[in-house]
Amino acid sequence: MPQPGKPQRIGAVKQITSHSNPIVKEIKGLVSQRKHRTQSGLFVAEGLKLATDALAANWDVRYLALGPEARENPVAQKAAATAKARGALILEVNTAVLSAMTRKDNPQMVVGVYEQKLVHADDLKPENTTVWVALDRVRDPGNLGTVIRTVDAVGGAGVILVGDCTDPFAVETVRATMGSLFHVPISKMPKDRFKQLAASWPGTVTGTHLKGSVDYRTVDYQQPALLLMGNEQQGLEDDMAGACNCLIRIPQVGQADSLNLAVATGIALYEIRRPHLEL
Amino acid sequence: MPQPGKPQRIGAVKQITSHSNPIVKEIKGLVSQRKHRTQSGLFVAEGLKLATDALAANWDVRYLALGPEARENPVAQKAAATAKARGALILEVNTAVLSAMTRKDNPQMVVGVYEQKLVHADDLKPENTTVWVALDRVRDPGNLGTVIRTVDAVGGAGVILVGDCTDPFAVETVRATMGSLFHVPISKMPKDRFKQLAASWPGTVTGTHLKGSVDYRTVDYQQPALLLMGNEQQGLEDDMAGACNCLIRIPQVGQADSLNLAVATGIALYEIRRPHLEL
Repeated sequence: MPQPGKPQRIGAVKQITSHSNPIVKEIKGLVSQRKHRTQSGLFVAEGLKLATDALAANWDVRYLALGPEARENPVAQKAAATAKARGALILEVNTAVLSAMTRKDNPQMVVGVYEQKLVHADDLKPENTTVWVALDRVRDPGNLGTVIRTVDAVGGAGVILVGDCTDPFAVETVRATMGSLFHVPISKMPKDRFKQLAASWPGTVTGTHLKGSVDYRTVDYQQPALLLMGNEQQGLEDDMAGACNCLIRIPQVGQADSLNLAVATGIALYEIRRPHLEL
Repeated sequence: MPQPGKPQRIGAVKQITSHSNPIVKEIKGLVSQRKHRTQSGLFVAEGLKLATDALAANWDVRYLALGPEARENPVAQKAAATAKARGALILEVNTAVLSAMTRKDNPQMVVGVYEQKLVHADDLKPENTTVWVALDRVRDPGNLGTVIRTVDAVGGAGVILVGDCTDPFAVETVRATMGSLFHVPISKMPKDRFKQLAASWPGTVTGTHLKGSVDYRTVDYQQPALLLMGNEQQGLEDDMAGACNCLIRIPQVGQADSLNLAVATGIALYEIRRPHLEL
């Protein structure tokens, strides 16, 4: 019987019809609890598109669960064959089991369990990269996932999670990345470690700040750039603003207090990369 | 007894302790079902910030429900006094009733019920405005709310919902607007009506299209501008692209298939308003 948290490299196929099967319980735990994801180093991504993205990126797949529909689908069959050849356990399940795993009434026909990957702070080398985005205590999974997706779109180097952030491997975050999680390196570090990194950063370290006095369109951003975004509620704290060598502001009129975090990050990223992006 | 869906202009205060009170049931219905919102022309916004935003914008308030905490809070007390003076019914409720109304374990201390407001297609006058955003069949409440928030931030004129869109008055949409729903006019119209409007639009009618051949940074956008964004899954359909006089593309590298809708809208809006926005 597979042991939760132990690598499965057996490349087999297994039928599961019972909700109380330990693998079903394991996947349920990964979907619903960060603790289980952290302890096992695994996470769940729903849907065939994310499975094909993960496989194309040579990402380690632990399990691939296929519902009845998927077993009739040539793309899903191919994904399963690839995953199995790389040692994943393929689970053939019914829709009720898929529902139980994902706690959804209308589950996707493919559910994958993948190994988490993080870049250690000591291995994060800014040299010869374009732009990294650092998010200070980001709270919203949708915002984090969307930022990862935008970093991918501008050819960014990766995302640094500073302090107590929402889980990049939560189901909603992964969904919001639309597959970019498998392409964008993620690093996690405490605030002090981030400040060290920022202090030795070779390019422009930009913070967006409502009190920033520099128009974001007027800066000559030196690559590798580092863009630091504050938390959704509080914005950038003073000590974190102090870690930047450039504090920008995105002009706002109207009565909105601020921009959504993912939107502000997108606008800043497209400005930082403006001289380098071509159609 | 107040009748659901009938205007209450009594400016009174009422204690409610029972979950089966008809107003509690009415609010529950407004939170959970679009049908109830559409039939009554009402919607729910949670939180004190949204209540103060609504009152500051002279928005019509039907009910303002205050939990025990709110009745000790000077800002909430002032909001309640203003709402009452304008004819709202103030509901003094316990936390259990707030939870029941909002179907949340940790409800906000203030819950407001407001009247929906929409601009009729015939009353939508582009002249002397900056930019309108049109969303074709937008599905995600978070995306819609975030777009409304961004339109506010750039001093945009309003948002047009084309075809079968997610409800702008759903709780999640309203929350994502962060109060900008009370500042940004919203209009709804079928596709054919939108095409008429676009055909007679005095400024640049811009569509974002993955196959667009024009770099979004190279266009001289004529105000009043109209920015049309396609649906999350399908992007802009061909006939809708045909309603535009300018098809732009936002460059993308990396392996992301596309940008998030709200992010792409934000980037395009900041470009359209670029010559007009100052710090």
